[in-house]
Amino acid sequence: MKAITIEKVEGKPGKVYYPLKLIDLPISTPKPTEVTVKLLAAALNHRDHFIRQHLYPGISFDSIPLLADGAGIVTSTGSAVPTSWLGKRVVLAPGRGWDSDPAGPESDVYAILGGTKHAPTGTLQEYISVPVSEVEEAPLHLDAVESAAIPLCGLTAFRAVFTKGQVQAGQNVLITGIGGGVALMALAFCCAKGAVVFVTSGSGDKLVAAKELGASAGVSYKSTAWEKDLKGLLPRSRPYLDVVIDGAGGDVAARTVPLLKRGGKIVSYGMTLAPQTPFTMSAVLKNIDLMGSTMGSRKEFGDMVEFVRDKQLRPVISKVADGISIDSLEPLFEDMKEGRQFGKLVVKIAPEDTAKL
Amino acid sequence: MKAITIEKVEGKPGKVYYPLKLIDLPISTPKPTEVTVKLLAAALNHRDHFIRQHLYPGISFDSIPLLADGAGIVTSTGSAVPTSWLGKRVVLAPGRGWDSDPAGPESDVYAILGGTKHAPTGTLQEYISVPVSEVEEAPLHLDAVESAAIPLCGLTAFRAVFTKGQVQAGQNVLITGIGGGVALMALAFCCAKGAVVFVTSGSGDKLVAAKELGASAGVSYKSTAWEKDLKGLLPRSRPYLDVVIDGAGGDVAARTVPLLKRGGKIVSYGMTLAPQTPFTMSAVLKNIDLMGSTMGSRKEFGDMVEFVRDKQLRPVISKVADGISIDSLEPLFEDMKEGRQFGKLVVKIAPEDTAKL
Repeated sequence: MKAITIEKVEGKPGKVYYPLKLIDLPISTPKPTEVTVKLLAAALNHRDHFIRQHLYPGISFDSIPLLADGAGIVTSTGSAVPTSWLGKRVVLAPGRGWDSDPAGPESDVYAILGGTKHAPTGTLQEYISVPVSEVEEAPLHLDAVESAAIPLCGLTAFRAVFTKGQVQAGQNVLITGIGGGVALMALAFCCAKGAVVFVTSGSGDKLVAAKELGASAGVSYKSTAWEKDLKGLLPRSRPYLDVVIDGAGGDVAARTVPLLKRGGKIVSYGMTLAPQTPFTMSAVLKNIDLMGSTMGSRKEFGDMVEFVRDKQLRPVISKVADGISIDSLEPLFEDMKEGRQFGKLVVKIAPEDTAKL
Repeated sequence: MKAITIEKVEGKPGKVYYPLKLIDLPISTPKPTEVTVKLLAAALNHRDHFIRQHLYPGISFDSIPLLADGAGIVTSTGSAVPTSWLGKRVVLAPGRGWDSDPAGPESDVYAILGGTKHAPTGTLQEYISVPVSEVEEAPLHLDAVESAAIPLCGLTAFRAVFTKGQVQAGQNVLITGIGGGVALMALAFCCAKGAVVFVTSGSGDKLVAAKELGASAGVSYKSTAWEKDLKGLLPRSRPYLDVVIDGAGGDVAARTVPLLKRGGKIVSYGMTLAPQTPFTMSAVLKNIDLMGSTMGSRKEFGDMVEFVRDKQLRPVISKVADGISIDSLEPLFEDMKEGRQFGKLVVKIAPEDTAKL
């Protein structure tokens, strides 16, 4: 079967961009507690872009396929797995080694699927064998492409919004850098919860699109004092932010502390703008928490899929590539490199109907 | 009766040091819901040192006495207050306008006692009238000087350690800058809870004294890589920190993130080293929270006094001045200016036995 990894070439971290490599792998048979899944779709995340630049620890150049997100149909079950799983459409938990501790992984070897030496496997292949405990039934209202768009970003957003940010109905939430996968899932989750959502972006088109998806208002972070623009948009009845969900870092905390209510939260799931964000005495005096949040537990993954099902949420899809080939994949990485995407970049691996058993 | 405020003189914030001024105030009679307390002792906090330097907002040069901490005996009750309060020894809640919200003050006019325009009154006077709802009975095992040493630092430490840090028995806690009032109360609270406490200080004597008070070990922050010294001291069975209680800021967060467990907490209650502390991507990837914590609610104050009573804790007293006079007060401020104190700087206002009714 076809799979895609990366090829080792000379170059320094951050300067290199490892070429994709099409490889041939045998289709594995499931171990007793595993299922084998015919993958219908897989999706990209920022980490895949970092892996190709060697800006990620423990990169594998061997036989671990790229990508952490995948959805497909169970085609084979291990001897200890009920055969009722056969034919079910499933989404894969994107990480291993973190069961349920709200604080963080219980295990020292927490690993995300795809592209690294620690990863047990990756989703950019035609078939994948995983423990049955690592899959969830896909929500019925989603097709395979939409299902594959959910795992990693959905999990990261769910933990950031609910476990860390504790977002409640009626609260004002700021989500920075709308357009990225996590930010858009956070927007969907906050809106579904009944929060009032504000967004930032460098693109006017993305601000308009975010409003169509449920955001109340947005401001351009290219404005020199965007926090003042934002202040003017807050409702008179609740003229402050309760929670900020941030993937940018840099001056976002300093700019938003004055807008946050006392005891407000800034949840940081990434730092694309700068590798650190200063926490100031003003934040201390307002009892504000700056909370790091990465990925989420297996339990949070299950809760997230259930929330998507219950609220009938749909991920935003930016572009779909057709089939496992280098030519189909490169335009997706190109979009990520240029920051052009608005939503998820997905690879359709097999047509939906051929997968029906 | 005697009271002490500050006198306005020329000088820029940070450069000026306002002289103390002895004034004469009438003894107030209690309003219906108030009690009048004959103050036996009052205590200094860092904010009083900042007030004299004009590094604190809303300073009063009028008739609001300095100081937030006080303990005394109820000598008069308002018409709506049970007379059973008469003769009780009480400690005063150091702030007003924050009832019980764990997130932060419900009121926009949260005010700490002493020295500012917002403050309803201050404790550097012979008698004080306050709502009966703003006092707690003093723990019986403490004398008046010890009781007065507890309110502001105890409240700040209690919220930082328990509400924010969620410190549990068996956890490893780092308390930076041991010697300050909050740090020493945090040490007492963590030890009483059964946590294993590590401390930093610039003074070898303070490290020794902290160990006598229950700290497991300490490192000098003058060591270029004190975090490595600290790492060597952590128990083999639990070789990481669970919580950092920090009043320094600066590079404390960056140095301690590698020592913290996943999902660990850094609680910041002040920044004496630098006005900000950088939060890094390493912290995000470890799901670490950097939490601002200032003062605490009326409910937390009651819980703190109850904890002190229940665990029979004693505050550390650095120096006691005798009587309300400028000459007695200045040496206390001098100690604070030089960072010489180890524990609280207290003013004994009246002898314990003269106050018995």
